[in-house]
Amino acid sequence: MSNNPTSSITRRAFLGRIGTVSGAAVMYQAMSALGFAAESSYSGPIELKGAPRDTSVLILGAGWAGLVAAYELSRAGYKVKVLEYNHHAGGRAMTLRGGDEYTELGGFKQKCQFDQGLHFNPGAWRIPYHHHGILDYARRLKVPLQSFNQVNENAYLHSSKAFGGKPQRFRYVRSDFKGHVAELLAKSLNQGGLDAALTAEDREKLLAAMRSWGILDKDYRYVASHAVDSSRGYKVDPGGGLMAKPESSTPVDSKTLLDSGLWKYLATDHDYEMGQAMFEPVGGMDRIPQALYNEIKPLVQFGAKVVNIDQDAHGVAVSYVDAVKGGAPTVAKADWCLCTIPLSILSQIPLQAGEPMKTAISAAAAYVASTKVGLQFKRRFWEEDERIYGGVTYTDLPITMISYPMEGQNLPGKGVLLGAYAFGPNSYTFASLDPAQRVREAVRLGAQIHPQYAKEFDNGVSVAWHRSPTTLGCFAPWRGDTRDRHYDNLCQIDGRIALAGEHASRLPAWQEGAILSSLDAISRLHARIVSNASGKKNG
Amino acid sequence: MSNNPTSSITRRAFLGRIGTVSGAAVMYQAMSALGFAAESSYSGPIELKGAPRDTSVLILGAGWAGLVAAYELSRAGYKVKVLEYNHHAGGRAMTLRGGDEYTELGGFKQKCQFDQGLHFNPGAWRIPYHHHGILDYARRLKVPLQSFNQVNENAYLHSSKAFGGKPQRFRYVRSDFKGHVAELLAKSLNQGGLDAALTAEDREKLLAAMRSWGILDKDYRYVASHAVDSSRGYKVDPGGGLMAKPESSTPVDSKTLLDSGLWKYLATDHDYEMGQAMFEPVGGMDRIPQALYNEIKPLVQFGAKVVNIDQDAHGVAVSYVDAVKGGAPTVAKADWCLCTIPLSILSQIPLQAGEPMKTAISAAAAYVASTKVGLQFKRRFWEEDERIYGGVTYTDLPITMISYPMEGQNLPGKGVLLGAYAFGPNSYTFASLDPAQRVREAVRLGAQIHPQYAKEFDNGVSVAWHRSPTTLGCFAPWRGDTRDRHYDNLCQIDGRIALAGEHASRLPAWQEGAILSSLDAISRLHARIVSNASGKKNG
Repeated sequence: MSNNPTSSITRRAFLGRIGTVSGAAVMYQAMSALGFAAESSYSGPIELKGAPRDTSVLILGAGWAGLVAAYELSRAGYKVKVLEYNHHAGGRAMTLRGGDEYTELGGFKQKCQFDQGLHFNPGAWRIPYHHHGILDYARRLKVPLQSFNQVNENAYLHSSKAFGGKPQRFRYVRSDFKGHVAELLAKSLNQGGLDAALTAEDREKLLAAMRSWGILDKDYRYVASHAVDSSRGYKVDPGGGLMAKPESSTPVDSKTLLDSGLWKYLATDHDYEMGQAMFEPVGGMDRIPQALYNEIKPLVQFGAKVVNIDQDAHGVAVSYVDAVKGGAPTVAKADWCLCTIPLSILSQIPLQAGEPMKTAISAAAAYVASTKVGLQFKRRFWEEDERIYGGVTYTDLPITMISYPMEGQNLPGKGVLLGAYAFGPNSYTFASLDPAQRVREAVRLGAQIHPQYAKEFDNGVSVAWHRSPTTLGCFAPWRGDTRDRHYDNLCQIDGRIALAGEHASRLPAWQEGAILSSLDAISRLHARIVSNASGKKNG
Repeated sequence: MSNNPTSSITRRAFLGRIGTVSGAAVMYQAMSALGFAAESSYSGPIELKGAPRDTSVLILGAGWAGLVAAYELSRAGYKVKVLEYNHHAGGRAMTLRGGDEYTELGGFKQKCQFDQGLHFNPGAWRIPYHHHGILDYARRLKVPLQSFNQVNENAYLHSSKAFGGKPQRFRYVRSDFKGHVAELLAKSLNQGGLDAALTAEDREKLLAAMRSWGILDKDYRYVASHAVDSSRGYKVDPGGGLMAKPESSTPVDSKTLLDSGLWKYLATDHDYEMGQAMFEPVGGMDRIPQALYNEIKPLVQFGAKVVNIDQDAHGVAVSYVDAVKGGAPTVAKADWCLCTIPLSILSQIPLQAGEPMKTAISAAAAYVASTKVGLQFKRRFWEEDERIYGGVTYTDLPITMISYPMEGQNLPGKGVLLGAYAFGPNSYTFASLDPAQRVREAVRLGAQIHPQYAKEFDNGVSVAWHRSPTTLGCFAPWRGDTRDRHYDNLCQIDGRIALAGEHASRLPAWQEGAILSSLDAISRLHARIVSNASGKKNG
């Protein structure tokens, strides 16, 4: 068994050689010339031409990376087989609905009790507008999307240590922080504090900008007024006819606001990954991978637990057992292998590969922990009582956040919200509880923000990713300088094996990372295969 | 004919007297006690109890105000008839679809050429989350809503005088403005510029906040970095596998940004009326008024042009003619009248009312002009090429803005966008053109932002509200101190006549204004009627 040195061709040269510049890519280049587009890592649908006849690729895993590879490689003419441990495709792009069963390590078995039509995405749950790969698959597969709003002006920012534990509307914190910053900068400008740094003309322009942007009064103060209300909201809203006149709300003073720390959450509103537009598939995140799976159903074998991955100069041999019953291993053979098994699992499977890849696998094998809890309530009190339609409330409690559903807004009936999204130590604490306890804990903590929890709670489910038998965590860590040292070694083709998944991407935890990783890996694999075949022919 | 002095009962006393505190209102008060709700002007579904038998109310206009009044008064037991000039209900909450005809003053007649499934809202087009009245009607009538996003990080801010006329992504302007403000304030703090205003501890906290919020480096500078990229976006996005490494984008320098004036548009992102969550009905804005109209269809007479409004101590008499054919007037009589005719029109109709009301009508009769243009394109290039899904691009060109559709996002096919929303002088310029010329002008100007316009344009429609025979403008102006001097006189019941509509609200131009105005007017009218009847009984 050999460990071929990796070809050093650049991606650009590679693209040129195998002629993958598709129509979409040409269009994209034209757009870039017009100055429209950033250089996205996704350049349109992949086109793999000239696959040698009767070449087989074994794909391990039917999450996003495996599905994309199976779809594209089979379209390119390869003989493809997929082995998947679970009995569903899509991996962490999972959706739980009423009746679904979910089993964690430790024997924790849950049956989702949601009412019909309600669902919960315990893993991937949102798609940024610049994740062109997943959006393109959704488009080609005609999966309807809807808006997912991360930021909601009327949702809360909550600190158990500020404002007596009373949650503050996002718009209060945002407007008031901006107003106080503008007032302070204006004060400094008016005191000549920045005269060395600015011309007199620029100083005047900046003062005018601070007054306008910060909504300052004629004396450059940020104080209650209807102008400020038009940003942070009124105490009494303007009405009709002879209803009460509008009344101004009172800004939070700068010291209280600064000390509260709530302004830290404003960053979510200035985040490339979370800003508008974001999407979710109508009906649940699994709709997109499910649509892709439907295209390649016959290629996928569920319930296959990989126990050994072997290769030599001529091909790969992967042993697997029945994921539930175990028993004697079956061996699947192929010319090449794309392995999308998470590093947390792969690091525990005997693998015939060179030290660089194996060291890289180990380096990022301790996955980041996270736990999500989905809660069904008897009524959508967050909309009915508090006028929060979608978006996220952030808190310093161990639940980290509460996210409100986009579907079924403003209609009567029950609703499911994300009641906890715990990371790190908080996730371990949640994961140490059994699922019913986790749900109770999410309800107990969330009730500090929404007192209606106590009365309206219906049922809940929870997924502690550290207890998922197929991932042992949420995503690959790449902490510190690990990426610089090991990432390239992880991604290089090792003999006849390539790896793919969010772990082999620079977009950890995102579906787009798994998709781009897969597209890149199969492009290089295809190039290697074509090159090998051409070498044989010419040799 | 008399002009009764208006009763001076307060709204609170009135509510108490007629017992309108419904279940929803009680709930709302409980919420307020919990500190959840601002004091909204909408306190839940109205409940009008004790309507005297055989009491008739004539309603003029079947826009939002008229529909709400007809629905609620007929439910309360009143005999209701509605006269409407148009042959559709909903007024300015209008939707144009393929095949619809629209005729303006001057004989401009258009037939909408949109493909099936596409539509355009030339009037009302969005619903803020705090417009509780319209949201409650949508809920009770089970009209499905979807998210309407005003702000889109990836849409453009455009000035023909800055950046060589090249549009800038919203996220660039937002991140860079924030970064430069933070850097300047940090500089001032580090130079001791605000030492008199802050304690040393607060100064340190503020410096830390500026570094975090503004994404400044260790020397408090706002410069290109992956941290900044995580807010404004990358030059090359992070990818998968061995794709090109991410590259940082370059912030715009503070002077260029300040001089461009583009930061002025950031206010839309901090606007109580335009922040998340906003809504639109699936399929077009007219879906909600249409659902309300369906509840009261037999009460509404279309094509009725009111030519005279008379009243005496015993009732009202309204003369109307066929809106198309004219001819001899018909007289409709009733005990009371709710007139929702826009002041621009009402000021031209002989009306038996006291001077205060008549002066108020004249004072706000010159409506604000606006023109909207809807453009259908052969493909959704703003999504396919430029990754703009919904939201608004702002420009200093006479089109003011381009708004992208929320429906059908990320699916192949044609699309309709708002190609112009012109106000004031720009609106008059547009309105002076015939509809085909307006469409051509919107395409010509919009092409400065989207060069694809030229090739992809399909067809368009336009509504110049100043040329609408039923409104002669977009909404009532209430300029300067007009509201202080005349608003109450407009809203007071004059004898047997009350007025309602957005013009009789503190929410001009919004559907919610018309709805709250109507609810307030019919509440007072009902109280007056009950009080009169009780007076007669006791007298």
